[in-house]
Amino acid sequence: MRIVELQQVDAEPVQMEGARGARVRVLIGQEHGAPGFTMRLFELEPGGHTPRHHHAHEHEIIVESGSGTLLTAETEHPLAPGTVALVGPDEEHQFRAGEEGMRFFCLVPHAGHR
Amino acid sequence: MRIVELQQVDAEPVQMEGARGARVRVLIGQEHGAPGFTMRLFELEPGGHTPRHHHAHEHEIIVESGSGTLLTAETEHPLAPGTVALVGPDEEHQFRAGEEGMRFFCLVPHAGHR
Repeated sequence: MRIVELQQVDAEPVQMEGARGARVRVLIGQEHGAPGFTMRLFELEPGGHTPRHHHAHEHEIIVESGSGTLLTAETEHPLAPGTVALVGPDEEHQFRAGEEGMRFFCLVPHAGHR
Repeated sequence: MRIVELQQVDAEPVQMEGARGARVRVLIGQEHGAPGFTMRLFELEPGGHTPRHHHAHEHEIIVESGSGTLLTAETEHPLAPGTVALVGPDEEHQFRAGEEGMRFFCLVPHAGHR
């Protein structure tokens, strides 16, 4: 059992090439005994974004606060609290924050974390 | 890619024995192309609860609104927005809502859903 408040976990800069103004908190991971998937909270500054990329693992995301967009290969979807999304394997995507920034939970299989 | 607003998905009563005043929305599942794990939103009425039980699969949970408690074999932890939890395999647990009810996301491997 692991029960944690978001603010108890430090936020680290996202080091991936193509990321800007992005930090991440690893809330639940393999190191905490989770068998299969990792829970992270991403924090984007106003105008911040994750890389535009694709990869073999999926994302399941939940917008926690703020607003922004999810850019896909074809289009751009607005994101706000109350929106959840599945980004499937190999689908191109980028998360971009609006003027107020955005925080979102992003869950991935352990193999897709780092 | 699946992008959905919480209110677009219908809530169904939780039929498990030992549940009271509990409904669930299946937001992302195998039927939407998710490779490994299912995202559900549970809604507990004031005083509502899930069964007190244990099982082989883990839960990763995020409190969305309201408040309540997570009862474990040993103790009781308060839950509110900003709290996340891992319930590991075979750990006894029960989610109980307080006077205002509680909503929480609960992610499980597909095998643990239904």
